[in-house]
Amino acid sequence: MEVDYANIKVIGFDADDTLWVNETYFREAEEEVGRLLSHYETPNKIDQELFRMEIKNLPTYGYGVKGFVLSMIELAIELSNSSVSNDIISKMLDIGKDMINKPIELLDGVEQVLKSLSKDYRLILATKGDLLDQERKLEKSGLLQYFHHIEVLSEKQEANYKKLLRHLDINPSEFLMVGNSLKSDILPLVNIGAQAIHVPFHTTWQHEKVTKKETNGMEYKTVDSLSEILKLFKGK
Amino acid sequence: MEVDYANIKVIGFDADDTLWVNETYFREAEEEVGRLLSHYETPNKIDQELFRMEIKNLPTYGYGVKGFVLSMIELAIELSNSSVSNDIISKMLDIGKDMINKPIELLDGVEQVLKSLSKDYRLILATKGDLLDQERKLEKSGLLQYFHHIEVLSEKQEANYKKLLRHLDINPSEFLMVGNSLKSDILPLVNIGAQAIHVPFHTTWQHEKVTKKETNGMEYKTVDSLSEILKLFKGK
Repeated sequence: MEVDYANIKVIGFDADDTLWVNETYFREAEEEVGRLLSHYETPNKIDQELFRMEIKNLPTYGYGVKGFVLSMIELAIELSNSSVSNDIISKMLDIGKDMINKPIELLDGVEQVLKSLSKDYRLILATKGDLLDQERKLEKSGLLQYFHHIEVLSEKQEANYKKLLRHLDINPSEFLMVGNSLKSDILPLVNIGAQAIHVPFHTTWQHEKVTKKETNGMEYKTVDSLSEILKLFKGK
Repeated sequence: MEVDYANIKVIGFDADDTLWVNETYFREAEEEVGRLLSHYETPNKIDQELFRMEIKNLPTYGYGVKGFVLSMIELAIELSNSSVSNDIISKMLDIGKDMINKPIELLDGVEQVLKSLSKDYRLILATKGDLLDQERKLEKSGLLQYFHHIEVLSEKQEANYKKLLRHLDINPSEFLMVGNSLKSDILPLVNIGAQAIHVPFHTTWQHEKVTKKETNGMEYKTVDSLSEILKLFKGK
């Protein structure tokens, strides 16, 4: 499939797991929670229950580390039948602070791609999660100069992207989104007539997974790594 | 002092304690924390220590209910010398969820003011805090229709407002900010050459307080209630 990027005016980049490592830190935190609560349940069961708790609390807390930690603590109290030690809860608070203060680990080719595309396009960072966290990560990443601004969306659904396009004052066909999540960065864009490039990351949060059926017949490009997207713009 | 609003193109409204009640719920939550931890300290000392903990964690957690609850839990463990009950921590989680899910209580005259001004100006909501919380509050408030969009700023400082104006593509003199916090909604705007109207709320978080010296000589209007600002636009 040949894609025509001649119309594109604005390129949106997802941040976590598209520009820098993120999900890996959540996986490590989940493993740590499994160890902390191993007195009460098997690691596998704890993992399942933590996911259930996160999803239960998602409408209240939204995405991001702080809600994740609050869900951990709620789970610890529940699984321990209200007998978990203060020491374990303290360690959970520390897990969250460590996650928030982690250094930024850029994925391969990120700076080169942004530097090159920022010459011809307006680039924006379109992410969900916590505004402060994302601003801080962008600052630490050294990539701030390439982006016009950050859009933090409370959800990455069609309605939110439509609002973003209205706000940018462009047509869907003038917007290209690049990201690692089919559910959040690709499908809603294709559905509203925008373009999308999928750059898979090796780990995907359960909540972000989609079925083959959902992507069937959808028009978007998939590349193995971010640096490959530059080839798609060659000869424009 | 006569103010000239002839140049104004965009009016920014602060949300919490300008359009709807918010700080009151934080005060109530602080009182509840005082009761929950009364076994360990006096209410006054707990209040001071909670403030200290919030400020210590502010660079990590930012503003909003979730960080507030995480600070409460950290304080409970600290003040109790790691002996606070799971029951008390559960109650703190509940305080947070209750705060997030509170119904919206609009302040006097809000709808009338927005309805009237939205005919002639582009209105935006310029708030700090949690994006999801603020979007949800705006939706619940029934005021969504009057705003072009929401800007959630991680901090309300001069640099953030300058970025906002660049993003809106307007000059400082074309922007008017309306809000209850001198520190966040008024002084940084006056300092960058924008206009500002102060609408005090009866309760101000310690962190938002400013000294007389800081406002000395500053040019901004103060009104008793939001509905009074319409008079300032009369005869334009």
